[in-house]
Amino acid sequence: MSEIKKIAVLTSGGDAPGMNSAIRAVVFSAARFGIEVVGIFRGYEGLIDWETIKLEPDDVRNINNRGGTILYTSRSERFLDEKFRKQAADNLRKNNVDAVVAIGGDGTLRGAIDFEKEGINIACIPGTIDRDVSCSEYTLGFDTAANTATEAIDKIRDSSISHGRCSVVEVMGRKRGYIALWAGMATSADAIILPEKWDGNYNNVTDAIKRRHEDGRNSYLVVVAEGVTDANELADLIKKKTGIESRVSVLGYIQRGGQPSAKDRMYGSLMGAYAVEILVNGNKNRIVAIKDDKLIDYSINEALNIQNSQIDSFQYKLSLLLSD
Amino acid sequence: MSEIKKIAVLTSGGDAPGMNSAIRAVVFSAARFGIEVVGIFRGYEGLIDWETIKLEPDDVRNINNRGGTILYTSRSERFLDEKFRKQAADNLRKNNVDAVVAIGGDGTLRGAIDFEKEGINIACIPGTIDRDVSCSEYTLGFDTAANTATEAIDKIRDSSISHGRCSVVEVMGRKRGYIALWAGMATSADAIILPEKWDGNYNNVTDAIKRRHEDGRNSYLVVVAEGVTDANELADLIKKKTGIESRVSVLGYIQRGGQPSAKDRMYGSLMGAYAVEILVNGNKNRIVAIKDDKLIDYSINEALNIQNSQIDSFQYKLSLLLSD
Amino acid sequence: MSEIKKIAVLTSGGDAPGMNSAIRAVVFSAARFGIEVVGIFRGYEGLIDWETIKLEPDDVRNINNRGGTILYTSRSERFLDEKFRKQAADNLRKNNVDAVVAIGGDGTLRGAIDFEKEGINIACIPGTIDRDVSCSEYTLGFDTAANTATEAIDKIRDSSISHGRCSVVEVMGRKRGYIALWAGMATSADAIILPEKWDGNYNNVTDAIKRRHEDGRNSYLVVVAEGVTDANELADLIKKKTGIESRVSVLGYIQRGGQPSAKDRMYGSLMGAYAVEILVNGNKNRIVAIKDDKLIDYSINEALNIQNSQIDSFQYKLSLLLSD
Amino acid sequence: MSEIKKIAVLTSGGDAPGMNSAIRAVVFSAARFGIEVVGIFRGYEGLIDWETIKLEPDDVRNINNRGGTILYTSRSERFLDEKFRKQAADNLRKNNVDAVVAIGGDGTLRGAIDFEKEGINIACIPGTIDRDVSCSEYTLGFDTAANTATEAIDKIRDSSISHGRCSVVEVMGRKRGYIALWAGMATSADAIILPEKWDGNYNNVTDAIKRRHEDGRNSYLVVVAEGVTDANELADLIKKKTGIESRVSVLGYIQRGGQPSAKDRMYGSLMGAYAVEILVNGNKNRIVAIKDDKLIDYSINEALNIQNSQIDSFQYKLSLLLSD
Repeated sequence: MSEIKKIAVLTSGGDAPGMNSAIRAVVFSAARFGIEVVGIFRGYEGLIDWETIKLEPDDVRNINNRGGTILYTSRSERFLDEKFRKQAADNLRKNNVDAVVAIGGDGTLRGAIDFEKEGINIACIPGTIDRDVSCSEYTLGFDTAANTATEAIDKIRDSSISHGRCSVVEVMGRKRGYIALWAGMATSADAIILPEKWDGNYNNVTDAIKRRHEDGRNSYLVVVAEGVTDANELADLIKKKTGIESRVSVLGYIQRGGQPSAKDRMYGSLMGAYAVEILVNGNKNRIVAIKDDKLIDYSINEALNIQNSQIDSFQYKLSLLLSD
Repeated sequence: MSEIKKIAVLTSGGDAPGMNSAIRAVVFSAARFGIEVVGIFRGYEGLIDWETIKLEPDDVRNINNRGGTILYTSRSERFLDEKFRKQAADNLRKNNVDAVVAIGGDGTLRGAIDFEKEGINIACIPGTIDRDVSCSEYTLGFDTAANTATEAIDKIRDSSISHGRCSVVEVMGRKRGYIALWAGMATSADAIILPEKWDGNYNNVTDAIKRRHEDGRNSYLVVVAEGVTDANELADLIKKKTGIESRVSVLGYIQRGGQPSAKDRMYGSLMGAYAVEILVNGNKNRIVAIKDDKLIDYSINEALNIQNSQIDSFQYKLSLLLSD
Repeated sequence: MSEIKKIAVLTSGGDAPGMNSAIRAVVFSAARFGIEVVGIFRGYEGLIDWETIKLEPDDVRNINNRGGTILYTSRSERFLDEKFRKQAADNLRKNNVDAVVAIGGDGTLRGAIDFEKEGINIACIPGTIDRDVSCSEYTLGFDTAANTATEAIDKIRDSSISHGRCSVVEVMGRKRGYIALWAGMATSADAIILPEKWDGNYNNVTDAIKRRHEDGRNSYLVVVAEGVTDANELADLIKKKTGIESRVSVLGYIQRGGQPSAKDRMYGSLMGAYAVEILVNGNKNRIVAIKDDKLIDYSINEALNIQNSQIDSFQYKLSLLLSD
Repeated sequence: MSEIKKIAVLTSGGDAPGMNSAIRAVVFSAARFGIEVVGIFRGYEGLIDWETIKLEPDDVRNINNRGGTILYTSRSERFLDEKFRKQAADNLRKNNVDAVVAIGGDGTLRGAIDFEKEGINIACIPGTIDRDVSCSEYTLGFDTAANTATEAIDKIRDSSISHGRCSVVEVMGRKRGYIALWAGMATSADAIILPEKWDGNYNNVTDAIKRRHEDGRNSYLVVVAEGVTDANELADLIKKKTGIESRVSVLGYIQRGGQPSAKDRMYGSLMGAYAVEILVNGNKNRIVAIKDDKLIDYSINEALNIQNSQIDSFQYKLSLLLSD
């Protein structure tokens, strides 16, 4: 059994709705086991500089409905350097911290793998709107981001329909098309451009719009994941090939913030509590993950090679079938 | 392979967000297979009276974001009577309908099982905010309802905190505690009363509140599923046992309506398209279901005996652990 | 010019969205004039018991988007007793407080009038969702409450239409029908029952529904202000007289909370800053009010006799004309 | 008294939430007076090409909660040409239309003034999110747009705070700063850049941020109206002068769409009904306007010279005073 008496918790990388629920669950769960919790500010940066706060249940009582992360976050450049990782590890040892719970995305997990080598026990929780942690079917924040993007596109569509235009909407996701796929299907997009599936053939997009225009339709929606292609160029191309006025909207940072959805609060709570159980049970260097909609955990070293979260092929097929 | 040339689609029982996405997906998918679709109004009532509308993609183009069901719904008393089921079956045969897609909850499924005996091929889609279709881990509308309840309780909590009160909030769910569990955990409830777990011991609730009051807390939240206990009596009891002013809110019908969440639009789309695939592949009398977060299907006769959707024990444990 | 060096700020009566913006504006404005601010907890109760907190800009920096009131509130029974008002006045003098800014509704204003007799300079800000401060066309919180009620009824209506029912929705407002009038008109209600206009004649309501039913309509909406009539009795009557299934929804406390609308944040900011200007300019015992959509102020003694906020007759006429 | 037997209604220019309520009120009010209504598609374009639809109460029954405009809209280039205005006037006469109700912004009003010369009686309703109709203190859609921008910036701020960044947010408004002023004040912006007040001095902005940074703050918000300055250049400048990472968000078209707020539904209803009253009372070529929060009307020729809607000086002063 565990010897855990004190744990640190931090959030790292892009902020994601649900991180606060995970923090709260870590603090509440730890309290039930008599474990002390120290919050680390600004992710790995705060480990290096030892910027911390003691966290008790009273400090995190009613934070489930708050966007962002109360511990702040960063993408730490210094943590890529062994020297600073050693400094962080020293800080933890000096302060008698037995384990770290790190909540974040792909970069956070890579940082944890390196950090493990300094002899630190680290438990990871996948938190990122992008769903780019390959071992987990779900990452905290995705559901809220998908809803925010969907509601924003609903509004854009009102205006697009009123004017008889084509709207090209760029959503977040970095190398992953989940937000685009969900928000695009939810808003009946005419075309959804995903990094995982994009073949560079713009003609398919413009032809689909042209065909519908000839069928008598007069407003159109294209949802594109950031990084796949330039939204402005795409809009210009649509205009040029079809003659239809096309306007670009880049949803941007609204997708990161906002009150978390019920799911992100629930899964944040579940993952935070599960991470504490892992530590209490004496396990080391694990990542919490969702597989088949259930909580499991992997070794962080193996995690990068596990693929639970590729674009679902039936979903993708339907995104073509159901395009409006 | 299928001989399906014409299908009917209907919604039955309590309306649920996401039903429109399922209808739309049925119509779009059918169109790809060259299948004609007739919409039936008011569930099984419309089958009996043959109140129908021809549905083509243009009729359902942009309905994903609409609450309720464009086909209306009912709980048909007459359909419990074999005479009317025969009449419904005759109507379908007379109109050359090869199969019916029925979207609804537990009652809808039971109706389908009886209807099968009239020689009608029926494919069911679980759509109900209550998640009371035992064979499926998910039913359309739950996610939206859980979010609506969560957002409503967030608001109630603002007022509860400002006044230093206890709020007792009754949510929907009939015999199921999912909405209570999710919305209660998402809003950090002090106690969540679920039909599946309720032992009738009010002292646990009032003691928890009294204990926190003594610790210096001054506002409280109890979330209770409808039907478990009388919310007004519970509030009176809390007042009597703890001296703390307690007010009741019954969330009611707001939980049924509203623009569907991204998940309900997505899963509605997936389930609708999947139902058409089942029929096209020549299968008969199946129900679409979610298991391990994936689409599967069961025979409707077996479905009632399959349990994929009991209250998750880890979630329940946490609801106690994380109570605020 | 003013000799004001220190002011107290409190919120009293029912909490209302926008109160936090008013508190923030008081603190920020006071800081610009070099005035110290002390926050009083739980309204007049905190004055009696001297439960306070020093407030500087850093303490209220980003609270515009929070529902409820960070200073808590109460309806103080004790403050109706001269003995406790004297105690409150002593507390203020002992602590060198030169003036009080009190944010609240009708009861708060009456308390202020009594309190003035103890030699305390008090500036009032009308904050209540009910719009029952007669001297002001607007009171903080109304806009948010009207939006919350409107959005809730939109959802109820989705379900009402799907089932072909009549929905009877009770909204807040105490003796005032504003929320009912706005939310009812915004949701195309068939009948809106206002305390100011209600003649007790239920036949008008049931006849209107019957008439529309005969015209082929099949869903209906009645919005009723709390206190005018019993919503359940009304629903039963509608069922009895028209044969149409009628269901009651009581919106309740969700109307008090929630993130404030842009207007309530803006007007809260304006009123808070204006109250400080009044005090800095040497005025005593004034209430901030809105007339012709502009900021003005009255003597609190005269305020009760000034009527700027009766139900607008054109609005009322239209509520009949435009009923759906 | 009026001889009005048939009126046309159209929406023109940028779509704005609340336009549908105005259309509905026109149709309902006209019906009470026994006046026929014809809906014109795509604004003045539909007048020229006579693309129309007969509108009865049943056609607009429950549209208050829909964003955009059911009649579509456009900015008609052709209507700037007398030839096409004559063609439009001929169409109206040929179809026995006695008057036109035109809902739109500044450009719509200018079109109406020109159109009056063709002998057509036209009543205007100010509908534009920009509030750029100088004779009216309010224009339909502003309240919804201000709320949408406020909610979006709330979300951006969550992320900005989590990362310790400066966010530069560009909102709509064309030549008017109302959305920026309201959304900026509602979200406690550090600086709000308005076209009406902008002196080109970026140092004021960067100095304010630098000063707060030195005071220990670590996240910042700048709200800028489109067209005043380039948001990307401003962010670069902030980065350069203060060393703080600055990110741009352009809110874009989400500000035009969405379910209208209670106010836009209410004022849309009031303005639509008032416009019909004007016509019924025999008045010609009037524009409905809001002054002192009340409905009035002006001659459309005089309207351009009337200023009821400049940036309020007290509001502006406070936007500086209350900057966070």
